[in-house]
Amino acid sequence: MAEVVVTVEPEGRKIRTAKGESLLTVLRASGVSIRSECGGRGVCGKCKIVVKEKARASEMTEQERSILTGAEIALNIRLACQVQVKGDLTVLIPVESRLRQRKIQVEGVETSFELNPAIRKLRAQPSKSTIFDAKPNAERLLSFLEENYDLNGLTIGYDALKKLPRALNSSMRDITATIWSDHKVIDVEAGDTTKLAYGIAVDIGTSKIVGQLVSLDDGQVVATNSIENPQIIHGEDVISRITFASESEGGTDKLRALVIDGVNYVISMVSKQGGVRRENIYEMTLVGNSAMHHILLGIHPLTLAVAPYVPTVKRSLNLGTRDLEVQISDGGNIHLLPLIAGFVGSDNVADVLATRVHTSEELTLLIDIGTNTEVNLGNRDGILCCSCASGPAFEGAHIHDGMKAVQGAIERVSLNARNYKVKYEVIGGGKPVGICGSGMIDILAELVRCNLIDQTGRINDESPTDRIRRVNESLEFIIAWSEETDKEDDIAITQGDIRELQLAKAAIYTGCSILMRKRGIRAGDIERICLAGAFGNFIDPANAKIVGIIPDIKSEDVVFVGNAALSGARMALLSTDVRRDASELSEKLTYVELGAEPKFNEELIAATYLPHKNLDLFPSFRKSFERKRGKA
Amino acid sequence: MAEVVVTVEPEGRKIRTAKGESLLTVLRASGVSIRSECGGRGVCGKCKIVVKEKARASEMTEQERSILTGAEIALNIRLACQVQVKGDLTVLIPVESRLRQRKIQVEGVETSFELNPAIRKLRAQPSKSTIFDAKPNAERLLSFLEENYDLNGLTIGYDALKKLPRALNSSMRDITATIWSDHKVIDVEAGDTTKLAYGIAVDIGTSKIVGQLVSLDDGQVVATNSIENPQIIHGEDVISRITFASESEGGTDKLRALVIDGVNYVISMVSKQGGVRRENIYEMTLVGNSAMHHILLGIHPLTLAVAPYVPTVKRSLNLGTRDLEVQISDGGNIHLLPLIAGFVGSDNVADVLATRVHTSEELTLLIDIGTNTEVNLGNRDGILCCSCASGPAFEGAHIHDGMKAVQGAIERVSLNARNYKVKYEVIGGGKPVGICGSGMIDILAELVRCNLIDQTGRINDESPTDRIRRVNESLEFIIAWSEETDKEDDIAITQGDIRELQLAKAAIYTGCSILMRKRGIRAGDIERICLAGAFGNFIDPANAKIVGIIPDIKSEDVVFVGNAALSGARMALLSTDVRRDASELSEKLTYVELGAEPKFNEELIAATYLPHKNLDLFPSFRKSFERKRGKA
Repeated sequence: MAEVVVTVEPEGRKIRTAKGESLLTVLRASGVSIRSECGGRGVCGKCKIVVKEKARASEMTEQERSILTGAEIALNIRLACQVQVKGDLTVLIPVESRLRQRKIQVEGVETSFELNPAIRKLRAQPSKSTIFDAKPNAERLLSFLEENYDLNGLTIGYDALKKLPRALNSSMRDITATIWSDHKVIDVEAGDTTKLAYGIAVDIGTSKIVGQLVSLDDGQVVATNSIENPQIIHGEDVISRITFASESEGGTDKLRALVIDGVNYVISMVSKQGGVRRENIYEMTLVGNSAMHHILLGIHPLTLAVAPYVPTVKRSLNLGTRDLEVQISDGGNIHLLPLIAGFVGSDNVADVLATRVHTSEELTLLIDIGTNTEVNLGNRDGILCCSCASGPAFEGAHIHDGMKAVQGAIERVSLNARNYKVKYEVIGGGKPVGICGSGMIDILAELVRCNLIDQTGRINDESPTDRIRRVNESLEFIIAWSEETDKEDDIAITQGDIRELQLAKAAIYTGCSILMRKRGIRAGDIERICLAGAFGNFIDPANAKIVGIIPDIKSEDVVFVGNAALSGARMALLSTDVRRDASELSEKLTYVELGAEPKFNEELIAATYLPHKNLDLFPSFRKSFERKRGKA
Repeated sequence: MAEVVVTVEPEGRKIRTAKGESLLTVLRASGVSIRSECGGRGVCGKCKIVVKEKARASEMTEQERSILTGAEIALNIRLACQVQVKGDLTVLIPVESRLRQRKIQVEGVETSFELNPAIRKLRAQPSKSTIFDAKPNAERLLSFLEENYDLNGLTIGYDALKKLPRALNSSMRDITATIWSDHKVIDVEAGDTTKLAYGIAVDIGTSKIVGQLVSLDDGQVVATNSIENPQIIHGEDVISRITFASESEGGTDKLRALVIDGVNYVISMVSKQGGVRRENIYEMTLVGNSAMHHILLGIHPLTLAVAPYVPTVKRSLNLGTRDLEVQISDGGNIHLLPLIAGFVGSDNVADVLATRVHTSEELTLLIDIGTNTEVNLGNRDGILCCSCASGPAFEGAHIHDGMKAVQGAIERVSLNARNYKVKYEVIGGGKPVGICGSGMIDILAELVRCNLIDQTGRINDESPTDRIRRVNESLEFIIAWSEETDKEDDIAITQGDIRELQLAKAAIYTGCSILMRKRGIRAGDIERICLAGAFGNFIDPANAKIVGIIPDIKSEDVVFVGNAALSGARMALLSTDVRRDASELSEKLTYVELGAEPKFNEELIAATYLPHKNLDLFPSFRKSFERKRGKA
């Protein structure tokens, strides 16, 4: 048989093939990524390509004429599955026809994967019943979809059934079916609504619920928003929530109702922002710590808080909208990512997914700082993880002038070592009203550097500056005088604040150091530190090391990955392969129970020093500290 | 190896086997039906037997000691799976240990099948998590069930998950799991609740909703009750309901809410009667005509009422309690039996299931009389079916003194041919207030027999009795004088009533006659007529033939099967094999659209005659009619 050459643009690749072959087959056989959902039947219209030499391609088919617009035909657009190669041919494959490789933007990490959501929207034109062929419309629709899109064993859900008569009626039987996991029709709509496919990724934090509305058609983020977790009225940390659930009548149900209200409020905000109807949001992925996960489900969280700290269920779950009373499309699916252990939830699974620690060669320390801080250490050969009770200090709680990282918060501080003048940056510009986590780390580091506090955290009471003053028997350092601020008072960091921050940072560092010991490595072996969490974006890595939150590695190897848990939830929304990874991770991550470590308390106390009692662990600061000590 | 003989009591059967074999294996291999759910692991305790010669059986095992009570041990009860045969042995298999073959009491029909519900309740004692084995409780439970009861791929539902922590906690980890279809745990409870397994079979009729509470443990009926279908405020027949659904804003949803309220009311009635908590009702089977089925689901019923009269969905459906807002166990399942066509619903599938027409050799005519009457003709070689618009006359509507078959209704009437004295029987004794369907058939037949109406239904205006009188230009026959009744007036049957009843009976007979023609048979070929329907129990077969409702076959071959639809729904509740039959029937029954028959109107008019215009069809009455004609 005569051989011909197909040249693929824009890459310019040349493929030798036999005359008469289908262009789609030729391209696929040569590994050119091209879309096609109907298995080459000319129905889905996804394999559009431009044929440069019209005459060397087979005639346009009936199928093509019914699917392509006049404008497309004028531009020499064809369906690859309908074209037979008659001679040497140059074809251009437009971006829309490429199999979609998506990059998720996780700060500091390049993460890419194929867009492969559980939701597909497919056109369908089921034929009409007649007196001679009285097959019901639901069965007609299922047969149409199975025959035209290579599907098997398809079923139809209750909500789609209810909408089917009207959808068929009002569209002259030209509808769009929404299919979940290639096996269940969950919605039907009149006309072509294939582009109106959305999902929402939600991270339920102890203090914040963040939601992100995403197009399932192109993977783009449409809107992001967050609210405070309304459960906060029953305690600000996980333990107080669990206590409330255990000790008050119907406590779990009350907390459940609050968080579901919160999730629904986030849905309403992002769908309004994005101009998307909730009926077109077909899936929700949810991540959160184990307590938030259990409470959302209405599962009593007590087992999480008492030894051996085991969740009631770990594996991923798919629930209906009526199970959780969540306001997305009635037939939609709610996918909860799997947990790891009582104190390491699906938010940590999502952190790992987003930072790709499990596929990376680099030995990575991944820290998601929050009221509970999750720490992971490992690479593709295995990952250890643990949870540290760091408390809400870095989020502003229990700190005299502490606040969240919102407008008016001091987020950067530096101190002149000679005259102790303070420079600071305020979120949103303007006058400050308080200080947020990154500012606290800065001031702590600067106070150490300027010798205004010692390694144990004690404020130097013989200090040479009037910024240190005694109030009610206790010392404090004034960051901003009242006249500079937008409040009635000075903004200061007190001796008590410093103690709180030391405990918080010690909890985090102890998690890191125990995992390092378990893995048998030292700080120098770590190739990358990923800092996640709402406030992680703004931490100065050098200061974080002076304070001793993170091990002493080169600052350029510390990357900020932002809300990686939300990124991971978004990836799971866009790819069922990522969900499979998540389930594997849930089994593969090795949980380390810090409370069971014999030397835990000892290590925690040593870690409250700034940066640490054992300066051998922080060699890059050892010298300067020894110098200071010499002076003192 | 030495051979021994096991004698099985009470049947006295002898089995030869090798010494040392497990008794359970021996019994099963010889086809003795014996229960065992754990696959012979000594866990389920279902294979209890009595061993007569204690010494010739192996020693009692640990497993037996933990499961059998002291009293049982004293009675020589053992678990067959734990006994090895050491010598000749006599074993008694108690009824409880037999595989359960159940008889459903359908009047006039013997129906038996194996009790094999979709719901199983199984004991489980999952071990406790430790710091070294931190498997979550849900996964522990699933593993326990899979290992001990030969199950695979088991999952746990949302409602069971929610209840799991408390159930384990309050029972020292000794719980009962409810499993649906051998693959999903839908409930968990503390302690042994295996006997508390109930289901409810519901028949949603156009005029009545009937529910029957059944024990899934032993198949017994616990309670039955019914209410009027609350949709009746929007019309008394299917067509007026469909019209309401189509023409009023949100009509389908309004009707749906009404019927769901009705079903929930029936559930509350039967569970109160039976002393059963709704939490222990795990499954509901539902049958009804296609319109009731669609409206219950909230599917617009319009396609049912316009050509080609096709339902939106036919196949059987399993729904969650939150889909239909039905108040059984939260994790319970609602099984809707499949439909056949737009006018032949799952009630007819259930009728066939209950009467076993599809497995029987006898050529059967099955008629379920109601506002719509379904007729089936066939046997195991094939069944034809159709729907007749018989209207609500036999249920008392549009009949001057008509009423339902309740207290005060005349249900039997006879007339003295010489003096025209009337004898009647009243439901509940006492004085009559009206007449119900069976009474109407009796009086119609007696009026024909006594020559007081002619074959066309016209009342004889030259009649020799004062019971015939003229009121407002129209004749009527007085059944009971006002002084005999419990109302202000006489009870009479008017010329108008007779016309209504003629139309109703003609509709039913025409269905029968068209199916007979399609099958190519005559009345004489029919071996059995099954009459179903709420009022079918009280019809006199001879009178039904005189009136011409049913073909002219021997009266002893006419059987009354009562509410066969409800019986079929109950069978589906008790056996998944019956559900499989139902799905097959839904495809195998051949629907005949009467409206498409060219001679339909002609046949209908001929059938309004009493019994029929063509007396060749009613040979047993031909002679007497011809005699009368001669006289007249």
